[in-house]
Amino acid sequence: MLRLGPGDDAAILRLGQRSEAVVTVDLLTDGVDFRLSEIDPRRAGRKALAVSLSDIAAMAARPTAAVVAVALPEQNGRELGEQLFLGMLPLAEQFGVAIAGGDTNSWAAPLVISVTVIGEVAGEEPLCRSGARPGDKIVVTGDFGGSILGKHLDFTPRVDESLLLSQRYRLHGGMDVSDGLSLDLSRMATASGVGACVELDAVPVSRAARELAARANDGSSALEHALGDGEDFELLMAVPPDDAQRMIAEQPLDVSLTIVGEFVDEQGLWQLDSQGNRQTLAPRGYEHRLD
Amino acid sequence: MLRLGPGDDAAILRLGQRSEAVVTVDLLTDGVDFRLSEIDPRRAGRKALAVSLSDIAAMAARPTAAVVAVALPEQNGRELGEQLFLGMLPLAEQFGVAIAGGDTNSWAAPLVISVTVIGEVAGEEPLCRSGARPGDKIVVTGDFGGSILGKHLDFTPRVDESLLLSQRYRLHGGMDVSDGLSLDLSRMATASGVGACVELDAVPVSRAARELAARANDGSSALEHALGDGEDFELLMAVPPDDAQRMIAEQPLDVSLTIVGEFVDEQGLWQLDSQGNRQTLAPRGYEHRLD
Repeated sequence: MLRLGPGDDAAILRLGQRSEAVVTVDLLTDGVDFRLSEIDPRRAGRKALAVSLSDIAAMAARPTAAVVAVALPEQNGRELGEQLFLGMLPLAEQFGVAIAGGDTNSWAAPLVISVTVIGEVAGEEPLCRSGARPGDKIVVTGDFGGSILGKHLDFTPRVDESLLLSQRYRLHGGMDVSDGLSLDLSRMATASGVGACVELDAVPVSRAARELAARANDGSSALEHALGDGEDFELLMAVPPDDAQRMIAEQPLDVSLTIVGEFVDEQGLWQLDSQGNRQTLAPRGYEHRLD
Repeated sequence: MLRLGPGDDAAILRLGQRSEAVVTVDLLTDGVDFRLSEIDPRRAGRKALAVSLSDIAAMAARPTAAVVAVALPEQNGRELGEQLFLGMLPLAEQFGVAIAGGDTNSWAAPLVISVTVIGEVAGEEPLCRSGARPGDKIVVTGDFGGSILGKHLDFTPRVDESLLLSQRYRLHGGMDVSDGLSLDLSRMATASGVGACVELDAVPVSRAARELAARANDGSSALEHALGDGEDFELLMAVPPDDAQRMIAEQPLDVSLTIVGEFVDEQGLWQLDSQGNRQTLAPRGYEHRLD
Protein backbone atom coordinates (compact mmCIF):
# COMPACT_ATOMS: atom_id res chain seq x y z
CA MET A 1 0.00 0.00 0.00
CA LEU A 2 3.04 2.24 -0.07
CA ARG A 3 3.41 3.69 -3.54
CA LEU A 4 6.25 6.12 -2.97
CA GLY A 5 8.49 6.07 0.05
CA PRO A 6 11.35 8.10 1.48
CA GLY A 7 13.06 10.48 -0.91
CA ASP A 8 10.25 12.58 -2.34
CA ASP A 9 8.61 15.53 -0.62
CA ALA A 10 5.85 13.35 0.72
CA ALA A 11 4.99 9.67 0.71
CA ILE A 12 1.99 8.32 -1.17
CA LEU A 13 -0.16 5.72 0.53
CA ARG A 14 -2.97 3.67 -0.85
CA LEU A 15 -5.80 3.48 1.65
CA GLY A 16 -8.75 1.27 0.97
CA GLN A 17 -9.71 0.42 -2.60
CA ARG A 18 -9.32 3.70 -4.38
CA SER A 19 -8.14 6.57 -2.24
CA GLU A 20 -4.60 7.71 -2.22
CA ALA A 21 -3.22 9.75 0.62
CA VAL A 22 -0.10 11.84 0.70
CA VAL A 23 1.71 12.23 4.00
CA THR A 24 4.67 14.34 5.07
CA VAL A 25 6.36 15.25 8.35
CA ASP A 26 8.67 18.10 9.27
CA LEU A 27 10.32 18.74 12.60
CA LEU A 28 11.46 22.25 13.51
CA THR A 29 13.66 23.22 16.43
CA ASP A 30 14.32 26.48 18.25
CA GLY A 31 17.77 27.75 17.29
CA VAL A 32 17.84 26.00 13.93
CA ASP A 33 14.58 26.81 12.13
CA PHE A 34 13.74 29.96 14.09
CA ARG A 35 14.91 31.80 17.19
CA LEU A 36 12.19 32.15 19.78
CA SER A 37 14.27 34.80 21.54
CA GLU A 38 13.84 37.03 18.48
CA ILE A 39 10.35 36.38 17.12
CA ASP A 40 6.71 36.18 18.09
CA PRO A 41 6.12 32.46 18.82
CA ARG A 42 3.04 32.52 16.61
CA ARG A 43 5.37 32.88 13.63
CA ALA A 44 7.19 29.72 14.69
CA GLY A 45 3.91 27.81 14.87
CA ARG A 46 2.85 29.17 11.52
CA LYS A 47 6.15 28.18 9.93
CA ALA A 48 5.95 24.63 11.30
CA LEU A 49 2.64 24.07 9.54
CA ALA A 50 3.61 26.02 6.42
CA VAL A 51 6.72 23.91 5.79
CA SER A 52 4.68 20.71 5.73
CA LEU A 53 1.98 22.31 3.59
CA SER A 54 4.71 23.24 1.12
CA ASP A 55 5.65 19.55 0.87
CA ILE A 56 2.03 18.69 0.10
CA ALA A 57 1.97 21.46 -2.51
CA ALA A 58 5.10 19.94 -4.03
CA MET A 59 3.09 16.79 -4.76
CA ALA A 60 0.17 18.78 -6.25
CA ALA A 61 -2.00 17.30 -3.51
CA ARG A 62 -4.76 18.87 -1.44
CA PRO A 63 -3.98 19.03 2.29
CA THR A 64 -6.78 17.79 4.53
CA ALA A 65 -5.51 17.29 8.08
CA ALA A 66 -2.54 17.86 10.33
CA VAL A 67 -1.34 16.33 13.57
CA VAL A 68 1.06 18.33 15.70
CA ALA A 69 3.52 17.17 18.35
CA VAL A 70 5.48 19.57 20.52
CA ALA A 71 8.17 19.38 23.16
CA LEU A 72 7.74 22.59 25.14
CA PRO A 73 10.39 24.02 27.43
CA GLU A 74 9.33 23.76 31.06
CA GLN A 75 9.10 27.49 31.68
CA ASN A 76 5.92 29.07 30.34
CA GLY A 77 5.28 25.99 28.27
CA ARG A 78 1.52 26.28 28.33
CA GLU A 79 1.50 29.84 27.07
CA LEU A 80 4.03 29.03 24.39
CA GLY A 81 1.94 26.06 23.26
CA GLU A 82 -1.12 28.27 22.94
CA GLN A 83 0.79 30.87 20.95
CA LEU A 84 2.11 28.22 18.56
CA PHE A 85 -1.41 26.96 18.03
CA LEU A 86 -2.72 30.49 17.45
CA GLY A 87 -0.04 30.93 14.83
CA MET A 88 -1.06 27.77 13.01
CA LEU A 89 -4.79 28.29 13.06
CA PRO A 90 -5.23 31.00 10.41
CA LEU A 91 -3.05 29.07 7.98
CA ALA A 92 -4.95 25.85 8.69
CA GLU A 93 -8.23 27.66 8.05
CA GLN A 94 -6.92 29.29 4.89
CA PHE A 95 -6.18 25.90 3.38
CA GLY A 96 -9.05 23.94 4.89
CA VAL A 97 -6.77 21.80 7.02
CA ALA A 98 -8.19 20.25 10.20
CA ILE A 99 -5.79 20.09 13.11
CA ALA A 100 -6.83 16.59 13.98
CA GLY A 101 -4.75 15.77 16.99
CA GLY A 102 -1.48 16.12 18.71
CA ASP A 103 0.90 15.26 21.47
CA THR A 104 2.04 17.85 23.99
CA ASN A 105 5.17 17.26 26.02
CA SER A 106 7.27 19.29 28.38
CA TRP A 107 11.01 19.01 28.92
CA ALA A 108 14.12 20.88 30.06
CA ALA A 109 15.33 21.81 26.57
CA PRO A 110 14.38 24.11 23.71
CA LEU A 111 11.13 23.98 21.75
CA VAL A 112 10.56 21.26 19.15
CA ILE A 113 7.54 21.20 16.83
CA SER A 114 6.71 18.30 14.56
CA VAL A 115 3.88 18.69 12.06
CA THR A 116 2.52 15.85 9.95
CA VAL A 117 0.16 16.80 7.14
CA ILE A 118 -2.03 14.37 5.25
CA GLY A 119 -3.47 15.18 1.88
CA GLU A 120 -5.42 13.73 -0.98
CA VAL A 121 -4.05 13.31 -4.46
CA ALA A 122 -5.98 15.90 -6.41
CA GLY A 123 -5.43 14.88 -10.03
CA GLU A 124 -4.86 11.52 -11.62
CA GLU A 125 -1.28 11.33 -10.47
CA PRO A 126 0.69 13.09 -7.77
CA LEU A 127 3.63 15.21 -8.85
CA CYS A 128 6.99 13.56 -8.18
CA ARG A 129 10.51 14.86 -8.38
CA SER A 130 11.53 11.91 -10.53
CA GLY A 131 9.41 12.86 -13.52
CA ALA A 132 11.58 15.44 -15.34
CA ARG A 133 12.48 14.58 -18.97
CA PRO A 134 15.15 16.05 -21.25
CA GLY A 135 13.69 19.04 -23.04
CA ASP A 136 11.31 19.95 -20.20
CA LYS A 137 11.56 23.56 -19.15
CA ILE A 138 12.54 24.35 -15.56
CA VAL A 139 9.74 26.58 -14.28
CA VAL A 140 9.64 28.25 -10.88
CA THR A 141 7.15 30.34 -8.94
CA GLY A 142 8.21 33.56 -7.23
CA ASP A 143 11.75 34.69 -6.58
CA PHE A 144 14.70 33.39 -4.65
CA GLY A 145 17.27 34.21 -1.99
CA GLY A 146 17.46 36.16 1.22
CA SER A 147 14.63 34.23 2.85
CA ILE A 148 16.34 34.65 6.22
CA LEU A 149 15.23 38.29 6.22
CA GLY A 150 11.65 37.18 6.83
CA LYS A 151 10.18 35.03 4.08
CA HIS A 152 11.33 31.82 5.77
CA LEU A 153 8.76 32.55 8.50
CA ASP A 154 5.98 34.24 6.59
CA PHE A 155 5.89 32.53 3.18
CA THR A 156 2.66 31.27 1.70
CA PRO A 157 2.87 27.58 0.83
CA ARG A 158 2.09 27.17 -2.87
CA VAL A 159 -0.84 24.83 -2.34
CA ASP A 160 -3.37 26.70 -4.46
CA GLU A 161 -0.80 27.47 -7.14
CA SER A 162 0.24 23.85 -7.43
CA LEU A 163 -3.34 22.60 -7.70
CA LEU A 164 -4.19 25.19 -10.34
CA LEU A 165 -1.08 24.53 -12.42
CA SER A 166 -1.50 20.76 -12.30
CA GLN A 167 -5.09 21.12 -13.49
CA ARG A 168 -4.35 23.48 -16.37
CA TYR A 169 -0.98 22.31 -17.65
CA ARG A 170 0.97 19.12 -18.09
CA LEU A 171 3.60 18.91 -15.37
CA HIS A 172 6.15 16.12 -15.58
CA GLY A 173 7.71 16.65 -12.17
CA GLY A 174 7.91 18.99 -9.26
CA MET A 175 9.19 19.74 -5.81
CA ASP A 176 9.41 22.67 -3.43
CA VAL A 177 12.64 24.59 -2.93
CA SER A 178 13.56 24.24 0.72
CA ASP A 179 17.32 23.74 0.74
CA GLY A 180 18.46 26.00 -2.12
CA LEU A 181 17.42 26.39 -5.76
CA SER A 182 20.59 24.91 -7.25
CA LEU A 183 20.84 22.09 -4.70
CA ASP A 184 17.18 21.10 -4.98
CA LEU A 185 17.33 21.33 -8.77
CA SER A 186 20.33 19.00 -8.81
CA ARG A 187 18.40 16.57 -6.61
CA MET A 188 15.41 16.69 -8.92
CA ALA A 189 17.63 16.06 -11.94
CA THR A 190 19.33 13.14 -10.20
CA ALA A 191 15.98 11.63 -9.15
CA SER A 192 14.82 11.90 -12.76
CA GLY A 193 18.04 10.49 -14.24
CA VAL A 194 18.63 13.64 -16.29
CA GLY A 195 20.68 16.83 -16.11
CA ALA A 196 19.57 20.41 -15.54
CA CYS A 197 20.90 23.55 -17.20
CA VAL A 198 20.19 26.90 -15.55
CA GLU A 199 20.18 30.20 -17.45
CA LEU A 200 21.76 32.37 -14.81
CA ASP A 201 20.30 35.61 -16.20
CA ALA A 202 16.80 34.18 -15.96
CA VAL A 203 16.87 33.31 -12.25
CA PRO A 204 14.41 35.59 -10.42
CA VAL A 205 16.46 37.20 -7.69
CA SER A 206 14.51 38.56 -4.74
CA ARG A 207 14.84 42.01 -3.28
CA ALA A 208 15.97 40.35 -0.02
CA ALA A 209 18.81 38.59 -1.88
CA ARG A 210 19.96 41.95 -3.28
CA GLU A 211 19.70 43.50 0.16
CA LEU A 212 21.87 40.79 1.70
CA ALA A 213 24.45 41.01 -1.10
CA ALA A 214 24.70 44.78 -0.66
CA ARG A 215 25.71 44.44 2.97
CA ALA A 216 29.34 45.06 3.77
CA ASN A 217 31.34 41.85 4.17
CA ASP A 218 28.53 39.66 2.82
CA GLY A 219 30.82 38.06 0.26
CA SER A 220 28.07 36.60 -1.95
CA SER A 221 26.35 38.07 -4.98
CA ALA A 222 22.59 38.41 -5.07
CA LEU A 223 22.50 35.59 -7.64
CA GLU A 224 24.51 33.35 -5.34
CA HIS A 225 22.00 34.03 -2.59
CA ALA A 226 19.18 33.14 -4.98
CA LEU A 227 20.87 29.89 -6.01
CA GLY A 228 21.85 28.71 -2.55
CA ASP A 229 20.06 30.32 0.37
CA GLY A 230 17.12 27.96 0.54
CA GLU A 231 13.86 28.19 2.49
CA ASP A 232 12.27 29.91 -0.49
CA PHE A 233 9.40 27.39 -0.45
CA GLU A 234 8.65 28.11 -4.08
CA LEU A 235 7.66 25.47 -6.63
CA LEU A 236 10.25 23.98 -8.97
CA MET A 237 8.67 22.16 -11.91
CA ALA A 238 9.53 20.20 -15.03
CA VAL A 239 7.13 21.34 -17.76
CA PRO A 240 6.94 20.24 -21.40
CA PRO A 241 8.00 23.19 -23.63
CA ASP A 242 4.54 23.91 -25.10
CA ASP A 243 2.89 24.01 -21.72
CA ALA A 244 5.74 26.03 -20.26
CA GLN A 245 5.40 28.69 -22.95
CA ARG A 246 1.64 28.81 -22.50
CA MET A 247 2.05 29.06 -18.72
CA ILE A 248 4.48 31.97 -19.06
CA ALA A 249 2.22 33.74 -21.55
CA GLU A 250 -0.88 33.27 -19.43
CA GLN A 251 0.71 33.97 -16.02
CA PRO A 252 -2.31 32.44 -14.28
CA LEU A 253 -1.07 33.00 -10.72
CA ASP A 254 -0.78 35.98 -8.39
CA VAL A 255 2.89 35.11 -8.13
CA SER A 256 5.18 35.17 -11.18
CA LEU A 257 6.12 32.07 -13.19
CA THR A 258 9.57 32.01 -14.77
CA ILE A 259 11.46 29.63 -17.02
CA VAL A 260 14.97 29.39 -15.55
CA GLY A 261 16.44 26.75 -17.86
CA GLU A 262 15.78 23.25 -19.08
CA PHE A 263 16.36 19.65 -18.26
CA VAL A 264 18.95 18.00 -20.51
CA ASP A 265 20.20 14.57 -21.42
CA GLU A 266 23.62 14.96 -19.94
CA GLN A 267 23.46 14.32 -16.21
CA GLY A 268 24.71 16.93 -13.78
CA LEU A 269 23.97 20.54 -13.02
CA TRP A 270 24.91 23.11 -15.67
CA GLN A 271 24.88 26.85 -16.01
CA LEU A 272 24.45 28.92 -19.15
CA ASP A 273 25.85 32.42 -18.87
CA SER A 274 24.75 35.47 -20.85
CA GLN A 275 27.31 34.64 -23.58
CA GLY A 276 25.73 31.21 -24.02
CA ASN A 277 28.65 29.32 -22.50
CA ARG A 278 27.76 26.13 -20.69
CA GLN A 279 29.75 25.15 -17.61
CA THR A 280 29.15 22.96 -14.61
CA LEU A 281 27.36 24.63 -11.74
CA ALA A 282 28.18 23.53 -8.21
CA PRO A 283 24.97 22.92 -6.25
CA ARG A 284 24.79 25.15 -3.20
CA GLY A 285 22.38 25.00 -0.33
CA TYR A 286 21.57 23.52 3.00
CA GLU A 287 22.77 19.96 3.41
CA HIS A 288 21.31 17.94 6.27
CA ARG A 289 24.69 16.81 7.45
CA LEU A 290 25.22 14.44 10.33
CA ASP A 291 28.40 13.53 12.15
CA MET B 1 -13.69 15.10 6.54
CA LEU B 2 -12.56 15.04 10.15
CA ARG B 3 -14.76 12.63 12.05
CA LEU B 4 -13.01 12.64 15.43
CA GLY B 5 -10.51 15.22 16.51
CA PRO B 6 -8.23 15.85 19.46
CA GLY B 7 -9.04 13.93 22.62
CA ASP B 8 -9.15 10.32 21.53
CA ASP B 9 -6.12 8.09 21.01
CA ALA B 10 -6.09 8.85 17.31
CA ALA B 11 -8.02 11.05 14.94
CA ILE B 12 -10.29 9.63 12.28
CA LEU B 13 -10.17 11.13 8.82
CA ARG B 14 -12.39 10.54 5.86
CA LEU B 15 -10.32 10.29 2.70
CA GLY B 16 -12.01 10.05 -0.66
CA GLN B 17 -15.48 8.54 -0.90
CA ARG B 18 -15.32 5.58 1.38
CA SER B 19 -12.02 5.09 3.14
CA GLU B 20 -11.42 6.15 6.67
CA ALA B 21 -7.96 6.68 8.01
CA VAL B 22 -6.84 6.85 11.58
CA VAL B 23 -3.83 8.98 12.43
CA THR B 24 -1.86 9.48 15.63
CA VAL B 25 1.39 11.19 16.60
CA ASP B 26 3.65 10.74 19.62
CA LEU B 27 6.80 12.63 20.42
CA LEU B 28 9.40 11.11 22.73
CA THR B 29 12.37 12.86 24.27
CA ASP B 30 15.61 11.67 25.83
CA GLY B 31 15.45 12.09 29.59
CA VAL B 32 11.66 11.88 29.76
CA ASP B 33 10.59 8.80 27.81
CA PHE B 34 13.91 6.96 28.00
CA ARG B 35 17.50 7.64 29.00
CA LEU B 36 19.91 7.14 26.14
CA SER B 37 22.77 7.09 28.64
CA GLU B 38 21.35 3.85 30.08
CA ILE B 39 19.88 1.90 27.19
CA ASP B 40 20.62 0.56 23.73
CA PRO B 41 19.31 3.30 21.38
CA ARG B 42 17.49 0.64 19.35
CA ARG B 43 15.11 0.25 22.28
CA ALA B 44 14.35 3.99 22.14
CA GLY B 45 13.54 3.73 18.44
CA ARG B 46 11.39 0.69 19.03
CA LYS B 47 9.50 2.41 21.83
CA ALA B 48 8.81 5.50 19.70
CA LEU B 49 7.06 3.40 17.08
CA ALA B 50 5.39 1.08 19.62
CA VAL B 51 3.74 3.95 21.49
CA SER B 52 2.03 5.18 18.32
CA LEU B 53 1.07 1.64 17.31
CA SER B 54 -0.58 1.27 20.71
CA ASP B 55 -2.73 4.33 19.93
CA ILE B 56 -3.79 2.74 16.65
CA ALA B 57 -4.59 -0.49 18.52
CA ALA B 58 -6.71 1.56 20.92
CA MET B 59 -8.95 2.46 17.99
CA ALA B 60 -9.15 -1.16 16.78
CA ALA B 61 -7.56 0.01 13.54
CA ARG B 62 -4.95 -1.64 11.33
CA PRO B 63 -1.69 0.33 11.09
CA THR B 64 -0.40 0.77 7.57
CA ALA B 65 2.34 3.38 7.48
CA ALA B 66 4.54 5.54 9.68
CA VAL B 67 6.49 8.72 9.15
CA VAL B 68 9.33 9.50 11.51
CA ALA B 69 10.96 12.81 12.38
CA VAL B 70 14.04 13.08 14.57
CA ALA B 71 16.18 15.81 16.08
CA LEU B 72 19.53 14.14 16.63
CA PRO B 73 22.20 15.51 18.94
CA GLU B 74 25.19 16.77 16.95
CA GLN B 75 27.67 14.25 18.28
CA ASN B 76 27.38 10.82 16.64
CA GLY B 77 24.00 11.80 15.23
CA ARG B 78 24.27 9.66 12.15
CA GLU B 79 25.04 6.48 14.06
CA LEU B 80 22.28 7.19 16.56
CA GLY B 81 19.80 7.74 13.74
CA GLU B 82 20.72 4.41 12.22
CA GLN B 83 20.35 2.62 15.54
CA LEU B 84 16.92 4.17 16.10
CA PHE B 85 15.83 3.01 12.67
CA LEU B 86 17.20 -0.49 13.31
CA GLY B 87 15.16 -0.60 16.49
CA MET B 88 11.98 0.34 14.67
CA LEU B 89 12.34 -1.95 11.71
CA PRO B 90 11.50 -5.34 13.26
CA LEU B 91 8.38 -3.90 14.90
CA ALA B 92 7.34 -2.25 11.63
CA GLU B 93 7.77 -5.55 9.83
CA GLN B 94 5.91 -7.47 12.51
CA PHE B 95 2.83 -5.31 12.03
CA GLY B 96 3.13 -4.71 8.29
CA VAL B 97 3.82 -1.01 8.72
CA ALA B 98 5.72 0.79 5.96
CA ILE B 99 8.11 3.47 7.16
CA ALA B 100 7.02 5.87 4.48
CA GLY B 101 9.14 8.89 5.08
CA GLY B 102 10.75 11.13 7.57
CA ASP B 103 12.65 14.23 8.46
CA THR B 104 16.13 14.09 9.94
CA ASN B 105 17.54 17.07 11.79
CA SER B 106 20.59 17.74 13.89
CA TRP B 107 20.87 20.14 16.80
CA ALA B 108 22.78 20.93 20.00
CA ALA B 109 20.27 19.33 22.38
CA PRO B 110 19.04 15.85 23.35
CA LEU B 111 17.33 13.38 21.05
CA VAL B 112 13.70 13.89 20.02
CA ILE B 113 11.73 11.31 18.03
CA SER B 114 8.28 11.96 16.62
CA VAL B 115 6.38 9.08 15.04
CA THR B 116 3.11 9.49 13.18
CA VAL B 117 1.24 6.30 12.33
CA ILE B 118 -1.61 6.06 9.87
CA GLY B 119 -4.04 3.19 9.90
CA GLU B 120 -7.22 1.94 8.35
CA VAL B 121 -10.42 1.39 10.24
CA ALA B 122 -10.72 -2.37 10.26
CA GLY B 123 -14.35 -2.98 11.24
CA GLU B 124 -17.46 -0.95 10.64
CA GLU B 125 -16.63 1.55 13.32
CA PRO B 126 -13.42 2.54 15.06
CA LEU B 127 -13.26 2.06 18.81
CA CYS B 128 -13.58 5.31 20.76
CA ARG B 129 -13.11 6.13 24.40
CA SER B 130 -16.50 7.83 24.51
CA GLY B 131 -18.53 4.68 23.91
CA ALA B 132 -18.78 3.12 27.40
CA ARG B 133 -22.30 2.60 28.76
CA PRO B 134 -23.52 1.90 32.30
CA GLY B 135 -23.46 -1.86 32.88
CA ASP B 136 -20.54 -2.46 30.51
CA LYS B 137 -17.76 -4.49 32.07
CA ILE B 138 -14.30 -2.94 32.29
CA VAL B 139 -12.01 -5.43 30.58
CA VAL B 140 -8.23 -5.17 30.34
CA THR B 141 -5.48 -7.11 28.65
CA GLY B 142 -2.36 -8.15 30.55
CA ASP B 143 -1.23 -6.83 33.90
CA PHE B 144 -0.29 -3.47 35.32
CA GLY B 145 2.38 -1.52 37.19
CA GLY B 146 6.14 -1.40 37.35
CA SER B 147 6.54 -0.73 33.64
CA ILE B 148 9.62 1.37 34.39
CA LEU B 149 11.53 -1.88 35.09
CA GLY B 150 11.49 -2.66 31.37
CA LYS B 151 8.04 -3.09 29.88
CA HIS B 152 7.80 0.60 28.96
CA LEU B 153 10.54 -0.04 26.40
CA ASP B 154 9.82 -3.58 25.28
CA PHE B 155 6.02 -3.91 25.34
CA THR B 156 4.13 -5.34 22.41
CA PRO B 157 1.46 -2.95 21.17
CA ARG B 158 -1.90 -4.74 21.30
CA VAL B 159 -2.63 -4.32 17.61
CA ASP B 160 -3.44 -7.96 16.85
CA GLU B 161 -5.37 -8.38 20.10
CA SER B 162 -7.51 -5.34 19.43
CA LEU B 163 -8.35 -6.42 15.88
CA LEU B 164 -9.25 -9.94 17.02
CA LEU B 165 -11.40 -8.77 19.93
CA SER B 166 -13.26 -6.21 17.84
CA GLN B 167 -14.04 -8.88 15.26
CA ARG B 168 -15.28 -11.50 17.71
CA TYR B 169 -17.01 -9.45 20.40
CA ARG B 170 -19.08 -6.33 20.76
CA LEU B 171 -16.90 -3.58 22.19
CA HIS B 172 -18.55 -0.31 23.15
CA GLY B 173 -15.39 1.65 23.83
CA GLY B 174 -11.68 1.36 24.27
CA MET B 175 -8.36 3.06 24.79
CA ASP B 176 -4.81 2.11 25.67
CA VAL B 177 -3.41 2.61 29.14
CA SER B 178 -0.50 4.99 28.82
CA ASP B 179 -0.76 7.34 31.80
CA GLY B 180 -2.03 5.00 34.53
CA LEU B 181 -4.92 2.53 34.78
CA SER B 182 -7.00 4.60 37.21
CA LEU B 183 -6.31 7.92 35.47
CA ASP B 184 -7.02 6.59 32.00
CA LEU B 185 -10.13 4.81 33.23
CA SER B 186 -11.42 8.04 34.75
CA ARG B 187 -10.79 9.79 31.43
CA MET B 188 -12.68 7.11 29.53
CA ALA B 189 -15.59 7.36 31.95
CA THR B 190 -15.65 11.14 31.61
CA ALA B 191 -15.50 10.96 27.81
CA SER B 192 -18.43 8.53 27.90
CA GLY B 193 -20.46 10.58 30.40
CA VAL B 194 -20.56 7.67 32.87
CA GLY B 195 -18.76 6.51 36.01
CA ALA B 196 -16.40 3.60 36.51
CA CYS B 197 -16.20 1.28 39.50
CA VAL B 198 -13.02 -0.78 39.97
CA GLU B 199 -12.92 -4.02 41.95
CA LEU B 200 -9.55 -3.58 43.57
CA ASP B 201 -9.04 -7.32 44.15
CA ALA B 202 -9.55 -8.01 40.46
CA VAL B 203 -6.85 -5.68 39.14
CA PRO B 204 -4.07 -7.80 37.59
CA VAL B 205 -0.92 -6.66 39.34
CA SER B 206 2.33 -7.34 37.50
CA ARG B 207 5.38 -9.02 38.94
CA ALA B 208 7.27 -5.78 38.31
CA ALA B 209 4.75 -3.84 40.42
CA ARG B 210 5.30 -6.30 43.28
CA GLU B 211 9.04 -6.02 42.84
CA LEU B 212 8.92 -2.23 43.08
CA ALA B 213 6.62 -2.31 46.12
CA ALA B 214 8.96 -4.72 47.91
CA ARG B 215 11.87 -2.32 47.61
CA ALA B 216 12.86 -0.52 50.78
CA ASN B 217 11.51 3.03 50.94
CA ASP B 218 9.23 2.55 47.93
CA GLY B 219 6.19 3.74 49.86
CA SER B 220 3.57 2.40 47.45
CA SER B 221 1.76 -0.91 47.44
CA ALA B 222 1.88 -3.17 44.41
CA LEU B 223 -1.77 -2.32 43.76
CA GLU B 224 -0.99 1.38 43.85
CA HIS B 225 1.73 0.81 41.29
CA ALA B 226 -0.75 -1.08 39.11
CA LEU B 227 -3.34 1.68 39.37
CA GLY B 228 -1.03 4.61 38.76
CA ASP B 229 2.32 3.82 37.18
CA GLY B 230 1.25 4.06 33.55
CA GLU B 231 3.08 3.09 30.37
CA ASP B 232 1.46 -0.34 30.58
CA PHE B 233 0.22 0.01 26.99
CA GLU B 234 -2.51 -2.52 27.62
CA LEU B 235 -6.06 -2.28 26.27
CA LEU B 236 -8.86 -0.90 28.44
CA MET B 237 -12.30 -1.73 27.05
CA ALA B 238 -15.99 -1.25 27.73
CA VAL B 239 -17.69 -4.56 26.92
CA PRO B 240 -21.37 -5.50 27.24
CA PRO B 241 -21.73 -8.10 30.06
CA ASP B 242 -22.59 -11.08 27.82
CA ASP B 243 -19.63 -10.50 25.56
CA ALA B 244 -17.35 -9.81 28.52
CA GLN B 245 -18.25 -13.14 30.13
CA ARG B 246 -17.77 -14.97 26.85
CA MET B 247 -14.43 -13.23 26.32
CA ILE B 248 -13.23 -14.23 29.79
CA ALA B 249 -14.38 -17.82 29.33
CA GLU B 250 -12.81 -18.17 25.89
CA GLN B 251 -9.57 -16.27 26.67
CA PRO B 252 -8.84 -15.98 22.93
CA LEU B 253 -5.52 -14.13 23.31
CA ASP B 254 -2.00 -15.09 24.27
CA VAL B 255 -2.27 -12.43 26.94
CA SER B 256 -4.85 -12.66 29.72
CA LEU B 257 -8.19 -10.83 29.66
CA THR B 258 -9.59 -9.69 33.00
CA ILE B 259 -12.78 -7.97 34.16
CA VAL B 260 -11.70 -5.31 36.65
CA GLY B 261 -15.05 -3.66 37.32
CA GLU B 262 -17.90 -2.03 35.50
CA PHE B 263 -19.10 1.26 34.16
CA VAL B 264 -21.90 2.77 36.23
CA ASP B 265 -24.49 5.53 35.98
CA GLU B 266 -23.05 7.70 38.70
CA GLN B 267 -20.20 9.76 37.28
CA GLY B 268 -16.79 9.62 38.89
CA LEU B 269 -14.24 6.93 39.66
CA TRP B 270 -15.16 4.38 42.32
CA GLN B 271 -13.49 1.49 44.08
CA LEU B 272 -15.08 -1.65 45.47
CA ASP B 273 -12.99 -3.31 48.16
CA SER B 274 -13.10 -6.98 49.15
CA GLN B 275 -15.90 -6.27 51.67
CA GLY B 276 -18.06 -4.83 48.90
CA ASN B 277 -17.75 -1.25 50.13
CA ARG B 278 -17.89 1.42 47.46
CA GLN B 279 -15.78 4.55 47.89
CA THR B 280 -14.38 7.16 45.60
CA LEU B 281 -11.05 6.31 44.04
CA ALA B 282 -8.63 9.14 43.31
CA PRO B 283 -7.24 8.77 39.79
CA ARG B 284 -3.47 8.44 39.83
CA GLY B 285 -1.07 8.57 36.94
CA TYR B 286 1.02 10.70 34.71
CA GLU B 287 -0.49 14.11 34.01
CA HIS B 288 0.92 16.09 31.09
CA ARG B 289 1.26 19.22 33.16
CA LEU B 290 2.46 22.50 31.78
CA ASP B 291 3.52 25.63 33.60
